[in-house]
Amino acid sequence: MNDTGKVLSTMLDKDNFSKWMGIVVDEYREGYCKLHYTITEEMLNGFGIVHGGIVFSGADSAFAFACNSHGVLSLALDVHISFIRAAKAGDRMIVEAEEIHTGNKTSFYNVTTKNDAGEIVAMFKGTAYRTGKPVYES
Amino acid sequence: MNDTGKVLSTMLDKDNFSKWMGIVVDEYREGYCKLHYTITEEMLNGFGIVHGGIVFSGADSAFAFACNSHGVLSLALDVHISFIRAAKAGDRMIVEAEEIHTGNKTSFYNVTTKNDAGEIVAMFKGTAYRTGKPVYES
Amino acid sequence: MNDTGKVLSTMLDKDNFSKWMGIVVDEYREGYCKLHYTITEEMLNGFGIVHGGIVFSGADSAFAFACNSHGVLSLALDVHISFIRAAKAGDRMIVEAEEIHTGNKTSFYNVTTKNDAGEIVAMFKGTAYRTGKPVYES
Amino acid sequence: MNDTGKVLSTMLDKDNFSKWMGIVVDEYREGYCKLHYTITEEMLNGFGIVHGGIVFSGADSAFAFACNSHGVLSLALDVHISFIRAAKAGDRMIVEAEEIHTGNKTSFYNVTTKNDAGEIVAMFKGTAYRTGKPVYES
Repeated sequence: MNDTGKVLSTMLDKDNFSKWMGIVVDEYREGYCKLHYTITEEMLNGFGIVHGGIVFSGADSAFAFACNSHGVLSLALDVHISFIRAAKAGDRMIVEAEEIHTGNKTSFYNVTTKNDAGEIVAMFKGTAYRTGKPVYES
Repeated sequence: MNDTGKVLSTMLDKDNFSKWMGIVVDEYREGYCKLHYTITEEMLNGFGIVHGGIVFSGADSAFAFACNSHGVLSLALDVHISFIRAAKAGDRMIVEAEEIHTGNKTSFYNVTTKNDAGEIVAMFKGTAYRTGKPVYES
Repeated sequence: MNDTGKVLSTMLDKDNFSKWMGIVVDEYREGYCKLHYTITEEMLNGFGIVHGGIVFSGADSAFAFACNSHGVLSLALDVHISFIRAAKAGDRMIVEAEEIHTGNKTSFYNVTTKNDAGEIVAMFKGTAYRTGKPVYES
Repeated sequence: MNDTGKVLSTMLDKDNFSKWMGIVVDEYREGYCKLHYTITEEMLNGFGIVHGGIVFSGADSAFAFACNSHGVLSLALDVHISFIRAAKAGDRMIVEAEEIHTGNKTSFYNVTTKNDAGEIVAMFKGTAYRTGKPVYES
């Protein structure tokens, strides 16, 4: 039986970069992950707005947690992201990964990043390859 | 007249996140940017390999520097990335952004990330929106 | 005032390729389009399944109709599509384009293609450039 | 031993839609395909320019032929396309698919569509899933 709590702790406990970002997982179940983080000065680019890589990373973490939630080790293969609205230091990002479809070898997710006002910051669509190996040893 | 050195210093000097990543720009001219960085322990995910967001960020920085190189303030709009090979702490990433096309309102770039052995780690394709404003005040 | 019926007739009446595909628009309003078509023998590839370009085309038509629905001439800029399930001759495709966000210069849509059994065939995400010109002369 | 001629005839002989489009393969070898077709009135959309789905289809055919060229049955999984320049009836499209990387389970291609003047019409990046089955029975 798959233990989603064990999947998440296996992934999150050693996820140095998600920790650096201050990512907090708020909801987690099979096929779904909701998390948040707050943009710091260290996350800005030369134009004084959040670096696109940070917004991608927050969405990518939600995607990784969600697509591994079934207990099958899954790796990001292809991702598309649209940057819709800028964000600045102090803004809190709320990220939600939702399953579109999970097949035998692949799975597909939509990941939405919004700010505190509920406005869309970025739209991320990810395809994962399912290796067939377990995420954790039972 | 566009001064690419001034574009790069305007963008890079205050780019906190690119600095955190230890990004070093090796070549820079209109429509082109080559940079490198080295993966640290802090950049890893829970599986002990580089977080996808780091590889994206390195490519996104090269894309941003390259698409602004003509002196017209340009913002990432849509990006697609394929993750081809994993990388680990200590690996040096070499990133090259090359212009596909620059139009009036948009520009398009291919960005390749390779490891020291010359193997492709990720393939990134970016579309930028050209605002029409200058990158720096002359 | 924007007349969505006029937008659709302006676009659809001369859309030779959508007609060749037998596309029928079932619902249409600002920010939304639902249509269907049926896969014919002429739409198959060498493996005897629907050519990917057909599935893309059906979604692209829905996207075009939807992103022009506000009366502002809009052109597809970047599109990402994931092919999730094959389809064969005789299958009916139901396509739904939903607005993610419409800004000043760009708009973003999710387009889902399903078969008659309600299974996802493809997931399409499109970004359009809004030219600022009207779709039809009023 | 893989016979690329046999791969191509297996795929092309029954590819009804590529035939409808008038696609002619000009060069074909492992990891590479070059083809052309000419835009007809039937391929136009309601704005009197080529339907985006046609440009996608031409690139998708080149991608399919190229990623199957090694003799391993491969299916398009994720595709990203940027529409860069419009094309009209009578324009000849020259399409070139080039391998970025072929791994065990996946392969990655860049596909460029140009017009007769050598101007880029669209840039397509495709990821294929390699099924492990042969394209033809030997």
